[in-house]
Amino acid sequence: MLKEAIYHRPKNNYAYAYDEETLHIRLRTKKNDVEHVNLICGDPYDWKNGQFQTHQLPMLISGSDELFDYWFVEIKPPYRRLRYGFELTNDSEKLIYTEKGFYTEKPLDDTAYYFCFPFINEIDVFHAPKWVKDTVWYQIFPERFANGDKSINPPGTLPWGSAEPEYNNFFGGDFQGIIDHIDHLVELGITGLYLTPIFKAKSNHKYDTIDYMEIDPQFGDKDTFKHLVQTCHNNGIKVMLDAVFNHSGYYFPQFQDVLENGENSIYKNWFHLREFPIITEPMPNYDTFAFVKDMPKLNTENPEVKEYLLEVGRYWVREFNIDGWRLDVANEVDHQFWREFRQAVKSIKPDVYILGEIWHDSMPWLQGDQFDAVMNYPFTNGALQYFAKDAVKATHFANIISGVLHSYPNNVNEVQFNLLDSHDTPRILTICDNNKDKMKLLYLFQLSFTGTPCIYYGDEVGMTGGQDPGCRRCMIWDKDKQDLELFNFVKKLISLRQTEPAFGNQGSFQFIEANDESNHIIYKKTFENESLLFVMNNSNTNIEVKAPITSDAIDILSGEQVKPGTIRLDSYGFKVFKLIR
Amino acid sequence: MLKEAIYHRPKNNYAYAYDEETLHIRLRTKKNDVEHVNLICGDPYDWKNGQFQTHQLPMLISGSDELFDYWFVEIKPPYRRLRYGFELTNDSEKLIYTEKGFYTEKPLDDTAYYFCFPFINEIDVFHAPKWVKDTVWYQIFPERFANGDKSINPPGTLPWGSAEPEYNNFFGGDFQGIIDHIDHLVELGITGLYLTPIFKAKSNHKYDTIDYMEIDPQFGDKDTFKHLVQTCHNNGIKVMLDAVFNHSGYYFPQFQDVLENGENSIYKNWFHLREFPIITEPMPNYDTFAFVKDMPKLNTENPEVKEYLLEVGRYWVREFNIDGWRLDVANEVDHQFWREFRQAVKSIKPDVYILGEIWHDSMPWLQGDQFDAVMNYPFTNGALQYFAKDAVKATHFANIISGVLHSYPNNVNEVQFNLLDSHDTPRILTICDNNKDKMKLLYLFQLSFTGTPCIYYGDEVGMTGGQDPGCRRCMIWDKDKQDLELFNFVKKLISLRQTEPAFGNQGSFQFIEANDESNHIIYKKTFENESLLFVMNNSNTNIEVKAPITSDAIDILSGEQVKPGTIRLDSYGFKVFKLIR
Repeated sequence: MLKEAIYHRPKNNYAYAYDEETLHIRLRTKKNDVEHVNLICGDPYDWKNGQFQTHQLPMLISGSDELFDYWFVEIKPPYRRLRYGFELTNDSEKLIYTEKGFYTEKPLDDTAYYFCFPFINEIDVFHAPKWVKDTVWYQIFPERFANGDKSINPPGTLPWGSAEPEYNNFFGGDFQGIIDHIDHLVELGITGLYLTPIFKAKSNHKYDTIDYMEIDPQFGDKDTFKHLVQTCHNNGIKVMLDAVFNHSGYYFPQFQDVLENGENSIYKNWFHLREFPIITEPMPNYDTFAFVKDMPKLNTENPEVKEYLLEVGRYWVREFNIDGWRLDVANEVDHQFWREFRQAVKSIKPDVYILGEIWHDSMPWLQGDQFDAVMNYPFTNGALQYFAKDAVKATHFANIISGVLHSYPNNVNEVQFNLLDSHDTPRILTICDNNKDKMKLLYLFQLSFTGTPCIYYGDEVGMTGGQDPGCRRCMIWDKDKQDLELFNFVKKLISLRQTEPAFGNQGSFQFIEANDESNHIIYKKTFENESLLFVMNNSNTNIEVKAPITSDAIDILSGEQVKPGTIRLDSYGFKVFKLIR
Repeated sequence: MLKEAIYHRPKNNYAYAYDEETLHIRLRTKKNDVEHVNLICGDPYDWKNGQFQTHQLPMLISGSDELFDYWFVEIKPPYRRLRYGFELTNDSEKLIYTEKGFYTEKPLDDTAYYFCFPFINEIDVFHAPKWVKDTVWYQIFPERFANGDKSINPPGTLPWGSAEPEYNNFFGGDFQGIIDHIDHLVELGITGLYLTPIFKAKSNHKYDTIDYMEIDPQFGDKDTFKHLVQTCHNNGIKVMLDAVFNHSGYYFPQFQDVLENGENSIYKNWFHLREFPIITEPMPNYDTFAFVKDMPKLNTENPEVKEYLLEVGRYWVREFNIDGWRLDVANEVDHQFWREFRQAVKSIKPDVYILGEIWHDSMPWLQGDQFDAVMNYPFTNGALQYFAKDAVKATHFANIISGVLHSYPNNVNEVQFNLLDSHDTPRILTICDNNKDKMKLLYLFQLSFTGTPCIYYGDEVGMTGGQDPGCRRCMIWDKDKQDLELFNFVKKLISLRQTEPAFGNQGSFQFIEANDESNHIIYKKTFENESLLFVMNNSNTNIEVKAPITSDAIDILSGEQVKPGTIRLDSYGFKVFKLIR
């Protein structure tokens, strides 16, 4: 057995409280190296005759990546506390793995050998709002969704769709436009709306905030916004705003004051100024987002700044009843700030969703004290590399996706924000080189995967566009120019999340097959005694696949009954079978 | 190269901010498998011509355990943010290790491959109080240190030292006794006093609190305690109290009220009551510490309980100017409580030391937001197994100790509470089977090791005693019965921590040799251009050792000049050489 590959450490993705009474425990071993794993466990204080009293529970493989198998078990310790180790067996040996290393027999003279989950304290349990699991998000870049009120067009507004998007042009998208088109979202089946920034700012993207307490007048006023939130709520749609707390815009009055008064500014501690006088060229001598002089980094450790931004967080929840905050560049702001932010906004509305923009491994932010989820770019990259770019084969894809799932607790996975593209990336149809069949595979995978999917406005009607600003074109409202077949396909998949419990977050995900020759994958989602089997042919040739259908099954897309045997799939074809146990 | 053995994950012992401008980065590889490691790193936003701009820094092996080598590098990123990976080389291959896996060439088309330390925010940096690094602790069990005021003896007090300690007997130790003997501590060189609980309680150990706001009258009153703290401070000694916040005592009035009034008690939410009526036999139907019905677990999530206990934390700091809190059963109380506790007590006195009682791997509590240190039992166990119990040989010992050092960040290691015994364990001389030579090796190791050492009262004068209550005998004050040779030995070692910078926490620790045949070890502590070389013979035969002394060296215990060559050590003998580069 390869000891060096065996890994476990409590209080992260390897051992966590799933709820107030349940622990999830995972173990990593070298791929195909171990045949059986038992969890050896007991109450830390359960002693008899000088021996620690343990019992054993079998663990099962929940997934594998390139190098490792991951083993899983769920346990409800009666006193909410657990000491535990692992018994690993294969053909040639048996090993006991503990916090203190490896043994050939389980040591029982002390509990100190064992890993410890000391107590499940309810307040520490990771809890995202219950509604998030069932949400399908839709991301809108407000300047480009719909122009519903020409009277507030910014100067120089161009006719809708009359030009390619540029860094500095405007088309007058606004809140009224969204309100006017709420039926489009409802018809699609959307239940959450994510708006990129709406606060007063200079640019068309509004990430350069001037005033966090004011709506940008090109979008409407506070009454219109209230009306928008109300309209969404009336239609069963939650609303999430975008908070840019890492940095302000250049025209943020506090930063302007600093530029003007330098060392004498009462706001000099609002930023990270390295020396005076302040200069912006050739390089700013203050901390910024990236190296962008127009985006001075805010000093979120300064109690004044903290209180200002926390009140921003509270204000829009309290006064406008929004349902979520998406936090821009969240990884560069201090953890302490986010802990206080969570408490501040949840004290107003306990089921607000807090979503951090982090592109890398985010376990330190997902311990229950900071965010409910992060934007799941590792998912995005894996899906795009396989389905859209043909950069990896089926096995590699399955390894990436299993790795993603095992890098976080299951209760985190269920609310992760699974996007395929956004205002920061090319649109998926463009990444798919306009191959709509590939795009459909992407959607099928995204919409049936663990987590909460997000659709970028316009993708559902076939919009294209490259890296920003290309991906920020005006929404196509002319039905003749919309791809309605695609729209109906996405709508169908979204509806399956509602009607088939195993399709959405209640279903547990497992790869069944990943075949590099034919480049097809099979995965299963299981809920109670029902399974859905997804078979996808990510190749440009027709293939025949032996799918593990042992009893009569139903093709849930065609409604047809299917017999066990060989499945034929067209190039880029797919099937979803419902299996009843 | 064994890919399965290679491990890194940011924001714990593998990558952490050592201070506001410095990152420490560690990598784990299979032992003796990799020859060179370079850190590949760059600012996340440093792009030129579509390529991520990186540079390389060599890493060095900072230690090894049974299975792994640990590589280390320190870096000060100019903009306090870093994306990084590792280039590993050995005879047969070169690998690039990133967050996304292994590559043969470093990928430069995206930063997303790389591990990320997004920003060093000062408020998140782990900061223990500066004074702790230089502290030598002394633990007193107040009932047994000295009886200085007979007028407050509890009923039935026995004459000092007239009987073996039992669970229910009293000898009248008190604050005045400690004040009277402060010279003993000063002479020994002690700079920190850790008192087990002093609050009103029924037992002699006082872990069964009745009133957290009152001194137990058998120890004195608040004025005496103030006088004790003042006396300590006048003598350069910090004072740390013991807080039992996981559970109260049975006679805590709030619990008594619950026992009396059951469901109608206004305190019913102060505990974790599972049903009514409350019963204590055969098993309590409320949560307790272990299964002890007399120690009901406090509901620290209840805002009332929280505020009560936080005020306890603040009160003794504010009114009595204490310097530290040792937190009993700290791992079973919620993280959220400890985060608020840290903020509460540090708001009164920013350099209060917060020490958690946790016996297992404690990384989740040592992220900078909760504790400054934990009681370092993994260190204790390793030292006792090797020096006291002969349960492991030299190599195994070195593996354990290197493992301990690499399981936490260096700034944590420097303030870890390194104890050899306590009121909860047999005394070290007893564990050493009364072999004083072995005990001296233990002390030499403890007092020269990274962290802050603690001496359990009386050990320094040769007291013995088994598992509690045996280890809680009355302090021996009769000079004729004290082992003064031992006292002077400990005193000498403590003084070396003050006079030789490399001896204490400024010196970085490294094993040079661990020899299982002769069972000797050699380790080095280095500070600037000075090194101390420790050679210890943990065997009952005389041995000759080739120590790596390349130039003239001084034996700092005898003061003699030493020439390069072979060192002779008596059974259980030791030498400490000072080497100047």
